[in-house]
Amino acid sequence: MRAIALTIEYDGTDFAGSQYQDGQRTVQSELEAAWQRLTGETRRWTFAGRTDSGVHARGQVVHTRTETHHTLPTVQRALNALLPSDIGVREVREADAEFHARYSAWRREYRYVILNEREGSPLLRRYALHVPEELDVGSMDQSIRVLIGEHDFATFGTVAHGSTVRQCFEARCAPVEENGRHLVTVELAANGFLRHMVRAIVGTLLLVGRGRWDATKVEQILRSRDRAASGPTAPPHGLYLEAVRYPPSVWAIGPSDGNSAHSGRH
Amino acid sequence: MRAIALTIEYDGTDFAGSQYQDGQRTVQSELEAAWQRLTGETRRWTFAGRTDSGVHARGQVVHTRTETHHTLPTVQRALNALLPSDIGVREVREADAEFHARYSAWRREYRYVILNEREGSPLLRRYALHVPEELDVGSMDQSIRVLIGEHDFATFGTVAHGSTVRQCFEARCAPVEENGRHLVTVELAANGFLRHMVRAIVGTLLLVGRGRWDATKVEQILRSRDRAASGPTAPPHGLYLEAVRYPPSVWAIGPSDGNSAHSGRH
Repeated sequence: MRAIALTIEYDGTDFAGSQYQDGQRTVQSELEAAWQRLTGETRRWTFAGRTDSGVHARGQVVHTRTETHHTLPTVQRALNALLPSDIGVREVREADAEFHARYSAWRREYRYVILNEREGSPLLRRYALHVPEELDVGSMDQSIRVLIGEHDFATFGTVAHGSTVRQCFEARCAPVEENGRHLVTVELAANGFLRHMVRAIVGTLLLVGRGRWDATKVEQILRSRDRAASGPTAPPHGLYLEAVRYPPSVWAIGPSDGNSAHSGRH
Repeated sequence: MRAIALTIEYDGTDFAGSQYQDGQRTVQSELEAAWQRLTGETRRWTFAGRTDSGVHARGQVVHTRTETHHTLPTVQRALNALLPSDIGVREVREADAEFHARYSAWRREYRYVILNEREGSPLLRRYALHVPEELDVGSMDQSIRVLIGEHDFATFGTVAHGSTVRQCFEARCAPVEENGRHLVTVELAANGFLRHMVRAIVGTLLLVGRGRWDATKVEQILRSRDRAASGPTAPPHGLYLEAVRYPPSVWAIGPSDGNSAHSGRH
């Protein structure tokens, strides 16, 4: 049977998260409804990562098995016509028989956006966390660096079952100017993330950035492996699932039109 | 009587434009309602520029006369608490007795944002115009430059009464990378704009960018002073009123907290 993988973008504001929940509007339920309208097939779509209500995605990856004969460009155009305007398909690929959106992924990238100005922004109210107190971004960056490497991240999240050890490839915090607004971004890349992990790390960093906690405290609480030692979980609306990366062996098959994995450029 | 000027930001999506209209949700009606709740005063607020339904503002300026004794920081905090989340007050100033948000302005700055990728973006659907065909940004920039200087802009807009001559200070079109998305921005600064002028210019530029019109055609239609010669009016949701500038003599009085005019930075 054929397998198809999509790279999708969504505005998380009006979803009860990515995963199917009875009676709720979720990304999965909208995608499965659009797929059924296109192909007549009732299929379960598998997501690379779960995102909570309000969390956005620029590069979520999903896959399903299918018997459709539609070409990849037709699948993309038709899904984009059938899906509501807060979900879009950025790329469609034939997937290898071995491909699994969740289990084949070797790297996931998240970004958290903070608006660090005295006043909030109506235009960014759904897309960045407003923090009015001036943040010490240097200390935040210094403290997040200790997360790089293989660690037990039990302080910052939970799993349904299995290990809480993850390998963190990148962790940085930096000031960004965008349209004259003063943003602070937190970027994390790892082989996997525990539930609420990015938001708990950001909530912890905000304590450092506000001067309530010393930068060395992050390493200390990481080592404690005590979920209660974490800072508070930051709100969802500043968080973006930016990209999911796969080994070339399973991913480099049949891009919809020769574009690179995460660009929709001509 | 005291006069107060505000610099406001709004997300134009859910407004029937800036100006009061019977039975419609407008920026003006929300602002006047919040003002009445704060002060008990029924005041008309004057806007520097009218914006249509769907058009956004990062730096609209408004003023009113008032008898309130609230301090400027109190006015800002209270209005931001009373206003809906799609309007925000970025700055509050005491205004000179001579100050008039519309008539004192000597420069207005607009920006139009185009998403120039094959697929649209759920996250930008309300904030940028999606143009899937690849645009020739060089030709667009070349053609918009002829607008700089003093011209009769009757081709690109209308006025209720008076002259259609305006002085255009800046006009440029450029590619911009933002969060990995390929944007094209059109920026215009002038002493004033006719109704629909920026959107008609953008609609015209899009014909040039798609290769339907030669770059020299923009100068030709500008000279025709024929409203029917313009390209189509581009949709409102890509447009932002970025800033309104005033002579220092009327504007440099009593910023709310020493910040520069269009920054809310600490």
